[in-house]
Amino acid sequence: MNGIHEKYINECFRLAKLGAGAVSPNPLVGAVIVKNGKIISSGYHERYGSLHAEANAIKNANENLEEAILYCNLEPCSHTDKQTPPCAPLIIKSGIKKVIISNLDPNPKVSGNGIRMLREAGIEVITGTVEKEGAELNKFFFKYITQKIPYVTIKIAQTIDGKIALNNSETSITGAESKRFVHSLRAKYDAVLIGANTVKIDDPKLNVREVEGRNPIRIILSKHLSFPADSYIIKTSKDQKTWIYTTDETHINSRFLDNSNEFDSGYNSLNKTIFYPKNLTIIKGKTDIPSILNNLAKEKITSILVEGGSNVFSQFIDSEMYDELILLIAPKILGDGLSSFISNKIQRLKLISSDWLGEDIKLVYRKF
Amino acid sequence: MNGIHEKYINECFRLAKLGAGAVSPNPLVGAVIVKNGKIISSGYHERYGSLHAEANAIKNANENLEEAILYCNLEPCSHTDKQTPPCAPLIIKSGIKKVIISNLDPNPKVSGNGIRMLREAGIEVITGTVEKEGAELNKFFFKYITQKIPYVTIKIAQTIDGKIALNNSETSITGAESKRFVHSLRAKYDAVLIGANTVKIDDPKLNVREVEGRNPIRIILSKHLSFPADSYIIKTSKDQKTWIYTTDETHINSRFLDNSNEFDSGYNSLNKTIFYPKNLTIIKGKTDIPSILNNLAKEKITSILVEGGSNVFSQFIDSEMYDELILLIAPKILGDGLSSFISNKIQRLKLISSDWLGEDIKLVYRKF
Repeated sequence: MNGIHEKYINECFRLAKLGAGAVSPNPLVGAVIVKNGKIISSGYHERYGSLHAEANAIKNANENLEEAILYCNLEPCSHTDKQTPPCAPLIIKSGIKKVIISNLDPNPKVSGNGIRMLREAGIEVITGTVEKEGAELNKFFFKYITQKIPYVTIKIAQTIDGKIALNNSETSITGAESKRFVHSLRAKYDAVLIGANTVKIDDPKLNVREVEGRNPIRIILSKHLSFPADSYIIKTSKDQKTWIYTTDETHINSRFLDNSNEFDSGYNSLNKTIFYPKNLTIIKGKTDIPSILNNLAKEKITSILVEGGSNVFSQFIDSEMYDELILLIAPKILGDGLSSFISNKIQRLKLISSDWLGEDIKLVYRKF
Repeated sequence: MNGIHEKYINECFRLAKLGAGAVSPNPLVGAVIVKNGKIISSGYHERYGSLHAEANAIKNANENLEEAILYCNLEPCSHTDKQTPPCAPLIIKSGIKKVIISNLDPNPKVSGNGIRMLREAGIEVITGTVEKEGAELNKFFFKYITQKIPYVTIKIAQTIDGKIALNNSETSITGAESKRFVHSLRAKYDAVLIGANTVKIDDPKLNVREVEGRNPIRIILSKHLSFPADSYIIKTSKDQKTWIYTTDETHINSRFLDNSNEFDSGYNSLNKTIFYPKNLTIIKGKTDIPSILNNLAKEKITSILVEGGSNVFSQFIDSEMYDELILLIAPKILGDGLSSFISNKIQRLKLISSDWLGEDIKLVYRKF
């Protein structure tokens, strides 16, 4: 019997993943309704603000749901302080007799409430089915809800000798498959984060081009707003949300706060007049990693992908403010060049997976 | 039909490997004799100086070999300037009607001679079966014969951040499975090589303990014989061949050349009298990598495993005098510590394999 439950919960996972990149800060949830040993309806949470998975599955059903079983990878919600009606009352009303779920709601304040409501209505509830995979699927959401900071993944594309670039020049380290993989990550993470040096040296796009998917928010850490004003990121911030964390209040006022036109003219150190898109967001305040992560969580960012460079990698690693480290190692020795990061601490990690991406290898580590 | 040939050649490979560590500077060779679709005899080259694989297979046969097929992973020898009689005449005499081999003899001077002799005697010969795997099996021998220097593998046990040790202290980087793997390598390579610093800091044993197998020759590069005279390696050189390459002629004479007793008293910089085993071999001359490799080949060393430390790794990598680079990466960040190597050159490599060794990952690279 457990094999059957697992099969349907895995189908919930598959459906849930279809919402990746669209539902944040909500979790990824899929639901299937089974009657007489057959799936008669299914649904998933498609995007933030739209119906929950359970509500979609119930809505999509063309049959009477009495005697039916609902599978859902996350505990149905019972609280009403949100955009859509709670799912537990909907399930009760539908006539469903049994509910199988993978994970409880990770929010300790509401965890178990949805299940209690169902049980009090006489519905049989089984929890913990394929629980570990369920938590893995929603690692962003679980971290965000329980620790109130985003899930942080550091992605480093480096050579065998741990170099991310030749000194002060843009260098393509990894191959096409690795690039596609990075773009698929970007489509899933709420935001990508880089430092000012990377803007200066690489002038990256940080969008999603190589795969289907939506662009992430771009975050730049720049104490002194020290990158060129005509950087690609700045020029395209009208079309892709871009947030800059800075301590440089003088420059903020002269550069970014006059939003009266579509483009704002502003300061530049070479005395040229440059224009900034009006909807670039400047966040002033502390630029230490914990402060930034706290602020990002307040902005409902559940996950960030840290993409460089060396200084930023070092800060995140040395402060141990990360969950996952993805190394993409190209089969090259670079020799002279910029080391990927410098840490001053001994840290124990755990190798989670290893996969070939063309000629590169991808190693995924988590904190131990 | 080709599938059948491959099956028997693979059996030759399996047999050939049983001689690993024992036949050098000869190649690894296995042979099977098939009659009426059944293996009726087999053999392999068991150790240097003993019978060749083909001779063993013929000797082991209890049946008339007329109409039989001989499978053998390397071209049978035809030359007589060696310890055992040549195989081609033996095969001709046995009555075998057909010979299937994987690789020709890589020595351009004799390559094809064995086959010609067989064909001239009316035996059908098919060559090139599973040829690539055959060359891989005998990568040491092929390199040694064709380039007249040993096959060089650099083995680096490092952390994620490319550190091989804390500064100037012995550090255990990788886990038990990686250690066993390194011992299995030592049992297959003719020699292991390290620098004087590694002797000083780690005082390693460089023997085979974790697996069954014979000890390799230990080679120390030490321009100035600057390691402690009571190092484990020196103390045990009576029992495990140990060669020191040095340019320091003054010290050689005072320390090592009086071999009149089992132990020799000798110089030490702290004015203590220390004793050296008489059969430690000191090789004086140039200590640059090409000179040492040339000299090792003259001493019939077909393969060396370079085990450290940072200076030695850097010399081999920077001079591109290596064939294979094995990285054993422990799931740790070490922070301050000694980098595994420093190279000043851009080099392209090829990832050959990746395997988990407990919590570590093993990445095998070859020169591109």
